Amino acid sequence: MKTIIIKSPATVANLVCGFDILGMALSEPYDIMKVKLIDEPQVVIHNKDNFHLPTDPEKNVAGVVLLSIIEQNHRFGFELEIEKHIMPGSGIGSSAASAAGAAVAANHLLGNIFSIDEMVQFAMNGEKLASGVKHADNIAPCISGGVSLIRSIHPLDIIPLSSPDLHVTVVHPQIEVRTSDARQILKKQVLLKDAIKQWGNIAGLVTGFLKNDHDLISRSLEDVIIEPVRSILIPGFDEVKIKCKEAGALGGGISGSGPSVFMLSKDEKTAKAVEAVMKDVYTRIGIEFITYVTTINKKGVEIVSSEL
Amino acid sequence: MKTIIIKSPATVANLVCGFDILGMALSEPYDIMKVKLIDEPQVVIHNKDNFHLPTDPEKNVAGVVLLSIIEQNHRFGFELEIEKHIMPGSGIGSSAASAAGAAVAANHLLGNIFSIDEMVQFAMNGEKLASGVKHADNIAPCISGGVSLIRSIHPLDIIPLSSPDLHVTVVHPQIEVRTSDARQILKKQVLLKDAIKQWGNIAGLVTGFLKNDHDLISRSLEDVIIEPVRSILIPGFDEVKIKCKEAGALGGGISGSGPSVFMLSKDEKTAKAVEAVMKDVYTRIGIEFITYVTTINKKGVEIVSSEL
Repeated sequence: MKTIIIKSPATVANLVCGFDILGMALSEPYDIMKVKLIDEPQVVIHNKDNFHLPTDPEKNVAGVVLLSIIEQNHRFGFELEIEKHIMPGSGIGSSAASAAGAAVAANHLLGNIFSIDEMVQFAMNGEKLASGVKHADNIAPCISGGVSLIRSIHPLDIIPLSSPDLHVTVVHPQIEVRTSDARQILKKQVLLKDAIKQWGNIAGLVTGFLKNDHDLISRSLEDVIIEPVRSILIPGFDEVKIKCKEAGALGGGISGSGPSVFMLSKDEKTAKAVEAVMKDVYTRIGIEFITYVTTINKKGVEIVSSEL
Repeated sequence: MKTIIIKSPATVANLVCGFDILGMALSEPYDIMKVKLIDEPQVVIHNKDNFHLPTDPEKNVAGVVLLSIIEQNHRFGFELEIEKHIMPGSGIGSSAASAAGAAVAANHLLGNIFSIDEMVQFAMNGEKLASGVKHADNIAPCISGGVSLIRSIHPLDIIPLSSPDLHVTVVHPQIEVRTSDARQILKKQVLLKDAIKQWGNIAGLVTGFLKNDHDLISRSLEDVIIEPVRSILIPGFDEVKIKCKEAGALGGGISGSGPSVFMLSKDEKTAKAVEAVMKDVYTRIGIEFITYVTTINKKGVEIVSSEL
């Protein structure tokens, strides 16, 4: 039986001024998935974690991705073991890791027959199940690693950006922010002058990534449209942000639609100082939290082992 | 007497999706300015063209720039001859050429004492006189050449982008579009979904410039916010744009606040085919016009000769 084991990483989407268009992969945390090619055109799911996610493939993010692949050709199926480490609802791409991991694993088992864009298309079925919307700003960096620009979804236009060697600190305060709530509180209209500021910043941020210019990245990490609205859903956000920048972070913001908050730093020492700040703030506020000190993951989904 | 003769080029601001933040310099047309350092703290202006621009330095774009430089140190003045070839009101940076040319010439005469940002600051006084607003998206590329990203005006943050070897075709239909009208018809609010599309495109365009990726530049040359509103002020705009792209142009749009329209092409042959299309359309509509087939100017203001 053809079998593959992969690591599928967490991701940060809505990268500050890059709402809906910019995401990056993290080296940690990551899910482990074992996928086996089987003869029957079905998907069998075993959870190897304690998140109690649905094992009905139609209701499981990885399941719907694999079903959409089977739909193209009814002669095979998949058996899947998922060991999730990226907590669902954390805002660091838990559903994308399942969806992208399933697509990459299936592609490998089938002899690498799909392009990256095709894998993204399959994986977006999982995002649709999880959040009601097909979006690729977690999926694309999860598959390819680094920083991905999603210029457009219809038609799909993904541009990989070279990513600098930055360190990332993430704090996941253990509160629930529903993606649907986070989306509903956004205003449908924005001021033109704010939009101009935002596209100046996104142009600066992308240039900073491509030129590996840390100062420019830092100056451009500003979101005048989404963050002022959404950050009210995250207790301690403003304080965390101010103090992390005082501790040396280049900048950061809400990861995805929250509640996780991420900060970029130019070295590990700073990233750890930033972590200490985050711990201080949430300990004092009295909200449980998890932190990660990691780097931008340049590989995306990785194959741990395969028997083909 | 210290004297300098410079060429100051035309520029395209509001580069499609880069409204207010992205501009580029053109190799043609350009103004010629002769600037002499004099002992008296005053500005004396002689026009060597037929545009009848004011010779009162307080009312002249180059004049106010030089006055603002004199203000810093009252021990010198400038005598200035302007031979304008960039038609005022054309939308290809006529006032910026005067303002930037004056600042660069003065800086040279004074022994290169100013940084580029300082020259931009002085030159923006000229833009303020011309349009009521300090903006740098013509000034910056005029001074430095190539494509300039103005991430922010307050504080000034100019990022030079590497510019690909593209050819530019410009048509200037001989109608008047007042900058103030062009600004007033813009809506103060825009849809968030359009703003997201715009910042996806600006991120794509900047990436395309930095990676010299013509296809990406072409896909990203789309403005869903400003152009749909302003293009109604330019007869024939939609037809010109569609037919120029059919003729092979990568894309383009309104130059500045119009009425000029520019198109980018990957080679001179295409740029000339695009010019033929522009001529056809405006000849048929019955509007007088001027066209230019040129390239992105990588040098900015150039010194033709100097006696120092």
